[in-house]
Amino acid sequence: MTKSANTMWGGRFAAGPDAIMEAINASIGFDQRLAAQDIAGSRAHAAMLAATGIITDNDAEAIREGLLTVLSEIETGKFPFSTALEDIHMNVEARLKDLIGEPAGRLHTGRSRNDQVAVDFRLWVRDQCDAADAALEALMQSLLGQAEAGADWVMPGFTHLQVAQPVTWGHHMLAYVEMFARDRSRFADARKRMNTSPLGAAALAGTSFPIDRDMTAKALGFDRPMSNSLDAVADRDFALEFMAAASITAMHLSRLAEELVIWSSAQFRFVKMSDKWSTGSSIMPQKRNPDAAELIRAKIGRIFGANVALMTVMKGLPLTYSKDMQEDKEQVFDAADHLLLALAAMAGMVADMEANVPSLEAAAATGFSTATDLADWLVRELGLPFRDAHHVTGSLVAMAEAKSCDLPELSLADMQSVHQDITQAVFDVLGVKNSVASRTSFGGTSPANVRAQTAAWKDALK
Amino acid sequence: MTKSANTMWGGRFAAGPDAIMEAINASIGFDQRLAAQDIAGSRAHAAMLAATGIITDNDAEAIREGLLTVLSEIETGKFPFSTALEDIHMNVEARLKDLIGEPAGRLHTGRSRNDQVAVDFRLWVRDQCDAADAALEALMQSLLGQAEAGADWVMPGFTHLQVAQPVTWGHHMLAYVEMFARDRSRFADARKRMNTSPLGAAALAGTSFPIDRDMTAKALGFDRPMSNSLDAVADRDFALEFMAAASITAMHLSRLAEELVIWSSAQFRFVKMSDKWSTGSSIMPQKRNPDAAELIRAKIGRIFGANVALMTVMKGLPLTYSKDMQEDKEQVFDAADHLLLALAAMAGMVADMEANVPSLEAAAATGFSTATDLADWLVRELGLPFRDAHHVTGSLVAMAEAKSCDLPELSLADMQSVHQDITQAVFDVLGVKNSVASRTSFGGTSPANVRAQTAAWKDALK
Amino acid sequence: MTKSANTMWGGRFAAGPDAIMEAINASIGFDQRLAAQDIAGSRAHAAMLAATGIITDNDAEAIREGLLTVLSEIETGKFPFSTALEDIHMNVEARLKDLIGEPAGRLHTGRSRNDQVAVDFRLWVRDQCDAADAALEALMQSLLGQAEAGADWVMPGFTHLQVAQPVTWGHHMLAYVEMFARDRSRFADARKRMNTSPLGAAALAGTSFPIDRDMTAKALGFDRPMSNSLDAVADRDFALEFMAAASITAMHLSRLAEELVIWSSAQFRFVKMSDKWSTGSSIMPQKRNPDAAELIRAKIGRIFGANVALMTVMKGLPLTYSKDMQEDKEQVFDAADHLLLALAAMAGMVADMEANVPSLEAAAATGFSTATDLADWLVRELGLPFRDAHHVTGSLVAMAEAKSCDLPELSLADMQSVHQDITQAVFDVLGVKNSVASRTSFGGTSPANVRAQTAAWKDALK
Amino acid sequence: MTKSANTMWGGRFAAGPDAIMEAINASIGFDQRLAAQDIAGSRAHAAMLAATGIITDNDAEAIREGLLTVLSEIETGKFPFSTALEDIHMNVEARLKDLIGEPAGRLHTGRSRNDQVAVDFRLWVRDQCDAADAALEALMQSLLGQAEAGADWVMPGFTHLQVAQPVTWGHHMLAYVEMFARDRSRFADARKRMNTSPLGAAALAGTSFPIDRDMTAKALGFDRPMSNSLDAVADRDFALEFMAAASITAMHLSRLAEELVIWSSAQFRFVKMSDKWSTGSSIMPQKRNPDAAELIRAKIGRIFGANVALMTVMKGLPLTYSKDMQEDKEQVFDAADHLLLALAAMAGMVADMEANVPSLEAAAATGFSTATDLADWLVRELGLPFRDAHHVTGSLVAMAEAKSCDLPELSLADMQSVHQDITQAVFDVLGVKNSVASRTSFGGTSPANVRAQTAAWKDALK
Repeated sequence: MTKSANTMWGGRFAAGPDAIMEAINASIGFDQRLAAQDIAGSRAHAAMLAATGIITDNDAEAIREGLLTVLSEIETGKFPFSTALEDIHMNVEARLKDLIGEPAGRLHTGRSRNDQVAVDFRLWVRDQCDAADAALEALMQSLLGQAEAGADWVMPGFTHLQVAQPVTWGHHMLAYVEMFARDRSRFADARKRMNTSPLGAAALAGTSFPIDRDMTAKALGFDRPMSNSLDAVADRDFALEFMAAASITAMHLSRLAEELVIWSSAQFRFVKMSDKWSTGSSIMPQKRNPDAAELIRAKIGRIFGANVALMTVMKGLPLTYSKDMQEDKEQVFDAADHLLLALAAMAGMVADMEANVPSLEAAAATGFSTATDLADWLVRELGLPFRDAHHVTGSLVAMAEAKSCDLPELSLADMQSVHQDITQAVFDVLGVKNSVASRTSFGGTSPANVRAQTAAWKDALK
Repeated sequence: MTKSANTMWGGRFAAGPDAIMEAINASIGFDQRLAAQDIAGSRAHAAMLAATGIITDNDAEAIREGLLTVLSEIETGKFPFSTALEDIHMNVEARLKDLIGEPAGRLHTGRSRNDQVAVDFRLWVRDQCDAADAALEALMQSLLGQAEAGADWVMPGFTHLQVAQPVTWGHHMLAYVEMFARDRSRFADARKRMNTSPLGAAALAGTSFPIDRDMTAKALGFDRPMSNSLDAVADRDFALEFMAAASITAMHLSRLAEELVIWSSAQFRFVKMSDKWSTGSSIMPQKRNPDAAELIRAKIGRIFGANVALMTVMKGLPLTYSKDMQEDKEQVFDAADHLLLALAAMAGMVADMEANVPSLEAAAATGFSTATDLADWLVRELGLPFRDAHHVTGSLVAMAEAKSCDLPELSLADMQSVHQDITQAVFDVLGVKNSVASRTSFGGTSPANVRAQTAAWKDALK
Repeated sequence: MTKSANTMWGGRFAAGPDAIMEAINASIGFDQRLAAQDIAGSRAHAAMLAATGIITDNDAEAIREGLLTVLSEIETGKFPFSTALEDIHMNVEARLKDLIGEPAGRLHTGRSRNDQVAVDFRLWVRDQCDAADAALEALMQSLLGQAEAGADWVMPGFTHLQVAQPVTWGHHMLAYVEMFARDRSRFADARKRMNTSPLGAAALAGTSFPIDRDMTAKALGFDRPMSNSLDAVADRDFALEFMAAASITAMHLSRLAEELVIWSSAQFRFVKMSDKWSTGSSIMPQKRNPDAAELIRAKIGRIFGANVALMTVMKGLPLTYSKDMQEDKEQVFDAADHLLLALAAMAGMVADMEANVPSLEAAAATGFSTATDLADWLVRELGLPFRDAHHVTGSLVAMAEAKSCDLPELSLADMQSVHQDITQAVFDVLGVKNSVASRTSFGGTSPANVRAQTAAWKDALK
Repeated sequence: MTKSANTMWGGRFAAGPDAIMEAINASIGFDQRLAAQDIAGSRAHAAMLAATGIITDNDAEAIREGLLTVLSEIETGKFPFSTALEDIHMNVEARLKDLIGEPAGRLHTGRSRNDQVAVDFRLWVRDQCDAADAALEALMQSLLGQAEAGADWVMPGFTHLQVAQPVTWGHHMLAYVEMFARDRSRFADARKRMNTSPLGAAALAGTSFPIDRDMTAKALGFDRPMSNSLDAVADRDFALEFMAAASITAMHLSRLAEELVIWSSAQFRFVKMSDKWSTGSSIMPQKRNPDAAELIRAKIGRIFGANVALMTVMKGLPLTYSKDMQEDKEQVFDAADHLLLALAAMAGMVADMEANVPSLEAAAATGFSTATDLADWLVRELGLPFRDAHHVTGSLVAMAEAKSCDLPELSLADMQSVHQDITQAVFDVLGVKNSVASRTSFGGTSPANVRAQTAAWKDALK
């Protein structure tokens, strides 16, 4: 019925083993994204070879200029990538030979494709840590903007998606600032741990050439060379740790996105998403489907799926390099791209969304949400043990529910019928605004706390 | 140091919210792979609309011809895909309107993008079941070729990667035939279960137009229309079940690939991989790195990672369609592509590999691998309880080990010193060829069994 | 500060290598759940050994009686499990020897622990397929009860958690009936595929004893013996396929549970969960936290996590048995237990919940949810192309929104100001009840369809 | 046929909704492992309540003594755990009330079960970081013992499981030391990041009582209180980060275990596992199945499966506490237990294994493993460009292969027939001992390097 979707593969495979082997074996289709890193690594290596007298300064200079030409060709889209040359390393080297001839053949002295790919990929992942850091900071700034605006907007604090206690909008935004700040610190730790240079490990055993690994490490911004050549070639921890950090970040994004989807529903009406981040319907022009939020929510699947993929690949691989490890790059590329995209979309969406303040406040007052304030008052003012105060409060809530009214609408007489020592002063703690204002313990939801935290964060992010 | 790898995203994001939203929201970059399915679905729908009198025959004919033109443009690479039109459905529809004008606007009667994407994707996945079935059959044929050639080549049967009992090469190959046959039956079951048509579910509630869902279902090769319109739009079971089957298949491939990698080592030398499926080294021209086997071994990561990704996406989505579900396609595309590639590579690799028969047989005789044959003889001929026979055998193995000889090299006197009733006949069961020949129980490793099973499979696959 | 939580391990490990090895190696702590299956397998094997003359009838009878005694001891909690005996198989065999002496030593003739554990575990998983089938049927009955009661209760059909079109409560319930019916068919397929007997594969190569594998297969309810002894010992597909089916089921449960959590919120108030399935708060006695729904929603993590665990374990294992495979049981035990628990809880919760019919209907009428009905009317009655009808409808919705009214509240003049051919008859399609009644296409949401589908399902489940 | 394995659940479920709800809802079955942490948290809280004047010193003292009694009862196994009381917190509180009466009711002032469970679980996970750190150090010591012994034992360095270049046993051991050292630093980072106190967040909003969160944080060894009460209650990052670190550690273990399994095979004979860590066979007493290595290899499945489980649970959960999060503990308990067990087993196994030095060295010399040494000599001594030197070396290897000899067995005339400038000195670099001795670049495999690294590590671990 339908035309086979596998024409591409089908066609290739009909061409026989060579085509299949090329399809499964060649990596140039994706590892060309490492071009800049590959050339940076080669430049550092060539400079070191000259400095240590392993090659001549003339050769080094020819290599340097040749590599700059190659980089320029790649950046301007003029580079003729060849699948027959399999990967980015061979493509660059072959082109360098075309450009400068014999000295190109000296570049690989004291180096192997094994440490070369390790250094390229590591540099790429390190860049992603920096990009994730910047994207997280931008998102934190968006959240801080909301927190500042709504430091005293009252909204429901939920447990089990049931109204539990009143909190402030700003406090809720700051909860995510904390999460994303932890994410930043995880990327920072990962970056620090991965920032050691595999270059000079050669094939796997090191080399007998008098190379200077400190010099290449320094030139590439690494803290130091890796201490064991087998480990340098066999290690993919840096990629896995990046993906673990990315997965936890994506989990945080999924929680915030879920809230935005729920809050955008007609039943909640807590926020109005900007047109920029939602899609409409030609037939229902009033509609704002929270597409961006839903897509962000889904990214955890993709990112954590990539983490699972690489962890599964690495399971049980003997040292040092196995070709299985070629599957590492596409997973990390995809995870990093979509993490950054999701962070950027969330930063924009949060910045542009509008809280429906009256709706938030009205919701905060439902469900006897200040019952714990009442109980705390009984403890504090009347000296009741906490568990007894809970019991008295429960009776008053039941009374209010029976009367279909809210707690502040009970009369003092009603109150005293349950516990005779209750005084008029109790009514001060039953309003949602008073409730949030009273939560002044460190980390609590009071507007004063929120303003202080927001200011502190803005200061820290300057 | 290195140029940011995220120029692409960075550049885009600098362009502001519109570019980010387009990047996260548009699917035309990948869902154009559904073009053939989309057009098939539209043709079936238009024909039905005419047959039920909802549109005129003239309109239907214009639509049909227009769609054929669109398909031809896509197949010949002339179709101008537009990202602004977001997805394949809108691209096709817009082009149809260009080509035929007003009738294009009638095609969408009684249909929605929700049931349209559901039918397109389902048809695509159904095609992959067929492709997987064919690829599995090809791999089984390769294995049967090896089984036929080596029905009586003796090799070690391993547990814990320790030699346990002699088996035959053919028997080992047939074990994988069984696994891949189960895989085929899983794809067949999945195909059957998914072969119901969502078309006509419309947005989610069905429609008031007198459409004929049986007619479109039949036209598209479905067994029947789906019975609930909400389910038709919300369901992605077919994709998940395809990926579950693909994951188990990939697990089987990983086991066979692991064996081939180990068997190719200098220490095992059980097989010689063909040059077609291995890579060499300019410096060690004798080398045959089993690259294809390693890459196949790794595919389970990618395929099961995609399964994890989609399962995570679907977790907790309320009915019916959520934009999260747009993340479904890339995962399935990638998993299907790499499953088919791995199967094709394995089929070629197995067909081309050469068993090292002397090396296999020599290995089979090590490790006192016929000890259970000896024990079975004691049970069968001397009537010892099984556990006692084990004990006697253990003593004889220990004696042979102490003498640094194999079991058949013990003398009859040695044997009788452990159990006096042992006779000369025992030596008949101690050779590896006799051992495998004796395992004639159904499913056992005897060459006669292997030949019968191979013949039965070849017959079944005809 | 806090006392180490690892006293248990710490204490053990202090005891040295033996304790660590026992802790990591012994399986009796969990595989005693296979006791009934182990004894059933041994009984079938013993009966066959006698029938084929491999052991005497007297021995077989002694074994049979001894095994019944062992089973009785286990069922009544009197069996002295021993960790030193490592696993359930050795525990049973040792006890049998205590009870009946020498004949116990003959039970293991033509069998090995490898095929024994394979048959035990397979029987156990087969039982879980049956249990899952029954639990799914019970849940379907609960859903059908709701569908029958609310065949014509109108509620919103959602996309993106935004109101899209009116549907019926019964139709929504039936969507889940379809999902769980597919789940049943997946378990049925898995059961059928796994229902082949590994018994008689012996260690891995088959046996030279004249065993009758058809007889033991039949006695244990298997369709036939497995065809390859290596595969019989090495295969864990049955466990993986069970977990794949369980994972998809758990995904369905997570979607329904998510809906119930959202529907229970104060903002939605679509359902009231029974006290039996929710928890309260001493301080807020009115509260009903949907704990059971949340816990069910979470079970996908546990069940799919177990699937990931076993898939990862099996990756790259050479044939046949590796000790890694001992990790299979706990994962499947946990996944099966929690699947059945979640299904039972969901069946009870669905049966006991109360829909808030007025709230559902009110929500259904919001958001211009009958806009597509209006567009369909324009196509059907006025002959507009679908896309034009969409455009007219969009203008009318915009007009209604500007007037802060619903579509049915626009006047005919208003309507005609946008398209002059609109007549009074249009108002018939704008009410939500008329809307759902009109969706009579197969699978559509009309009450008549829902009643017919419900009746058909009840009939099928009888 | 076989008795249902679900008697347990079946029986319970027959008892109706209450039993099902209790089974799915109660956590005391597993969270009793948090008893010590729960009591530590309560003691800190009570002391703070007294210090801030919220309760009296007398009450605080009664609480302190009561809690010590409870702890003692639990540690001595006398505590009557009650499922009706659901969780460890309620069990402890109820028992405290039995013991001390009214003051028990004051303990919960300014606290909630939400921050209580958060602090308990965090303390428990923090303990596991410490335990993992210690277990990793012990394993590193075992590896260093092997590295020290075999600093100059020559063995093959593998890529693709093919012999590539000679390396030293010590160098190989040190590669794993590097991996496990990174693991330790990951646990250290995770510990540092999680070491902030949720106590005082109360239900979710903070409290109006003048609590001193710095005091409780300090008392429990935390660096500081968490800054946002919503985050404090909703956060499970600490558990996920622990499991991510554990998963990468388990991946390293799986690689080492895989090597040990392969090295233990009859074909490799690189190591002999100790009897303590392997299992035999009654029938093949010579056998040493590497059971411990295989079980360790499998643990990545279990540990990473738990990571997947919790990540899936957390996906898309709105703030703050949802009951879904009760699924967190069992996953982390299981992952931590098995990580520690696997580390302990690996430490023992590595310490006890014996390298087969002659076999390692013989294997190192196969496969023309010093070809790169030859090429490097050509570059260094004759000034050939690297790529040309590779070409010459390739010709010499091909010549040796044709002559069925090794590189050192070629004559100088043979050598010169390929490149006339080659001198007798070349033979100095062709032996495996010379090869490893020459790899003196930092991180290279030379025995001198290995000794220096081993000494440095031993110093660092003192």
